[in-house]
Amino acid sequence: MSFSPLIERLMESLRVLPGVGPKTAQRMAMHLLERDRDGGRRLVAALDVALERVGYCRRCRTLTEEEVCGICQSARRDDAVLCVVESPADQLAIEEAGGFRGRYFVLHGHLSPLDGIGPEDIGLDQLEARIAEGGVEEIVLATNPTVEGEATAHYIAAQLAPQGVSLSRLAYGVPMGGELEYVDGGTLSRAFNGRLPFRGE
Amino acid sequence: MSFSPLIERLMESLRVLPGVGPKTAQRMAMHLLERDRDGGRRLVAALDVALERVGYCRRCRTLTEEEVCGICQSARRDDAVLCVVESPADQLAIEEAGGFRGRYFVLHGHLSPLDGIGPEDIGLDQLEARIAEGGVEEIVLATNPTVEGEATAHYIAAQLAPQGVSLSRLAYGVPMGGELEYVDGGTLSRAFNGRLPFRGE
Ligand SMILES: [Zn+2]
Ligand SMILES: [Zn+2]
Repeated sequence: MSFSPLIERLMESLRVLPGVGPKTAQRMAMHLLERDRDGGRRLVAALDVALERVGYCRRCRTLTEEEVCGICQSARRDDAVLCVVESPADQLAIEEAGGFRGRYFVLHGHLSPLDGIGPEDIGLDQLEARIAEGGVEEIVLATNPTVEGEATAHYIAAQLAPQGVSLSRLAYGVPMGGELEYVDGGTLSRAFNGRLPFRGE
Repeated sequence: MSFSPLIERLMESLRVLPGVGPKTAQRMAMHLLERDRDGGRRLVAALDVALERVGYCRRCRTLTEEEVCGICQSARRDDAVLCVVESPADQLAIEEAGGFRGRYFVLHGHLSPLDGIGPEDIGLDQLEARIAEGGVEEIVLATNPTVEGEATAHYIAAQLAPQGVSLSRLAYGVPMGGELEYVDGGTLSRAFNGRLPFRGE
């Protein structure tokens, strides 16, 4: 025996969520069907509209339903410093740590030749064009302190070197092998203050 | 800073899922928006149709999109034995354990006067009507071995007593593969009282 086809299909599709195995998917499906159909309907509506309308900010590529995101629109941010991050979650972590008042650029990943992820896939043509516009004096390469994040930072540094912009990297207050998203605010803010010139050797 | 309104709304609505806190909701929202929009759309469709079409089996009250569920429809089940369970998940667990060939009745909960959950809310009028039809010789009261499950079983037993049907309850005992040291006293003492002749074949 199993559940009816529509319930089995629901359980199967819940497994698209990270960390959700068969048992958790069953518990979630039963909870929604047995105890919280209104909550389930709100989830359908919210996910549907988010998938439909959330895209990339035209300027910094973060996730947003607007053409240009709030930070890019803000008149109170410093155009001279641009922080390059791998993901919107990393960007949020830096914002929540506080202290940084510049702009962002979001890669949505890192270079990964084995997975066929090259420079255009992480928006580096757009990043170069943006630097070429002028006005950016320093780029903080805040990619993750992982092998791939390091490699991506080095690649970007090499690409942008001709443009004569100053490059820095977060200080190693951030734990090696970790992901920015999960670093506490204090560590992150200290790492920002201790950022170092990036040589991209 | 926070994410854009539609992303915040998505994260909020994901928290309707059991065991999902703010950090997990963020991880799920980012995963769906950044890496698996197709999976997200499948989830929207599956949840939408399940909420729309999955209801209660007219005969046993289990969750199904059919008028009458597969087990109730099956000609190969024994009408003489009816197993009463609290939830479709309990029913599935019994089916997966194997061996039981009778029919089911699903309460969708247990009596809970403090929460205003009375006999009609768990379908006891329907259960009585079903027994009155005749044909059921034994009812297995497979409610949970909890205070509420016990109370519910006792209430049902009292209600059905006049109909002269035989009532049974799942055996209590030490769980297979468990260690006595970790079995609570109540369970252990019941297991002692319910001890069986040992043949040691
Ligand atoms: Zn932006
Ligand atoms: Zn049924």
